Amino acid sequence: MQIAILLFDQFTALDAVGPYETLGRLPDAQTVFVAERTGPVRSDTGNLALLADRTLADVPSPDILVIPGGPGQRALMEHEPLLNWLRTADATSTWTTSVCTGALLLAAAGLLTGRRATTHWLTLDQLKQYGVEPTGERVVFDDKYVTAAGVSSGIDMGLTLLGRIAGDEQAMTVQLLTEYDPQPPYDAGSPQKAPASLVEKFRQHRPS
Amino acid sequence: MQIAILLFDQFTALDAVGPYETLGRLPDAQTVFVAERTGPVRSDTGNLALLADRTLADVPSPDILVIPGGPGQRALMEHEPLLNWLRTADATSTWTTSVCTGALLLAAAGLLTGRRATTHWLTLDQLKQYGVEPTGERVVFDDKYVTAAGVSSGIDMGLTLLGRIAGDEQAMTVQLLTEYDPQPPYDAGSPQKAPASLVEKFRQHRPS
Repeated sequence: MQIAILLFDQFTALDAVGPYETLGRLPDAQTVFVAERTGPVRSDTGNLALLADRTLADVPSPDILVIPGGPGQRALMEHEPLLNWLRTADATSTWTTSVCTGALLLAAAGLLTGRRATTHWLTLDQLKQYGVEPTGERVVFDDKYVTAAGVSSGIDMGLTLLGRIAGDEQAMTVQLLTEYDPQPPYDAGSPQKAPASLVEKFRQHRPS
Repeated sequence: MQIAILLFDQFTALDAVGPYETLGRLPDAQTVFVAERTGPVRSDTGNLALLADRTLADVPSPDILVIPGGPGQRALMEHEPLLNWLRTADATSTWTTSVCTGALLLAAAGLLTGRRATTHWLTLDQLKQYGVEPTGERVVFDDKYVTAAGVSSGIDMGLTLLGRIAGDEQAMTVQLLTEYDPQPPYDAGSPQKAPASLVEKFRQHRPS
């Protein structure tokens, strides 16, 4: 089974690495990082580069597609070479997934039309213009489409999908070995839980 | 402020990317990935490579040192070029931190002697041979030394340390923007919580 994780300039690293470290531990699966060109791809901070080992053309039909988000998503919403690859890969995928604003790329490719999905809380409304029903849930399954909320939610998505594919014991094994027993020092991880002043500050400055 | 994150062959990717995505959002800080040689460094699965942008010699005195773990740690426990860099960097650091078995590298360099620390649950006992007191806590502060448990705990460590350095509001901002509102599909993330049969299976096969 082949898992393809997309990379693009200004992706958010944890969006990609969360599913890699969980779903990527699926027995007998091989994860491959793909981009338009092979070589280093810089994340949104500019301080991290992940290597794309294969081009999009090299990986036309992965079993599982993982599309991360990040500020670089905005420049790709009408980028046909990528949107066409998404459509082609999706045509034969078993699962098509996204983390954070990666869902907007799937939506722009027309793959989520009429479906329920989620994305980073700051961009939930944007799903509607693609005929997608936004939900505030952290991980959303709709048929073979699995979308996760912002950044860190890709870990929960990866474990959940791993359980669906390989069974609960395998997913619990990965949770135990990655010691995923979260103990955040604050309870501010969603717009419902964070101080209202913080939420408002970012809603006012969100990118269009 | 400079944050140096070490890379080495067969590191565990999330160990490094968790602190990068949280602590690395410290205002006015620059994160740099360092290794013995610049260029791609492969993780433990072989499917991911992160780029080292600087050599150890290029980064002699970071303000914050982040040492990830992973199976590759075992080959480095007597590797003097690395241990010497750890000692030198630690001599002037404000914070010296680790995730997972990165703590064993700090211990091998003699930096944790007489201190309380943690590491991946499967290797906790190994701390004792370096004169370090193992604790089962997820994030352990002892003076300027901050150690985190396995893999995903680096996210909690990063947020906690960010709060100490830049204040609660800054750390909550990062938690909100990374949507770190964990909802694991199982409650199996520690040896106390996972099914006993799973825990036992790995205790019996742990690497020495």
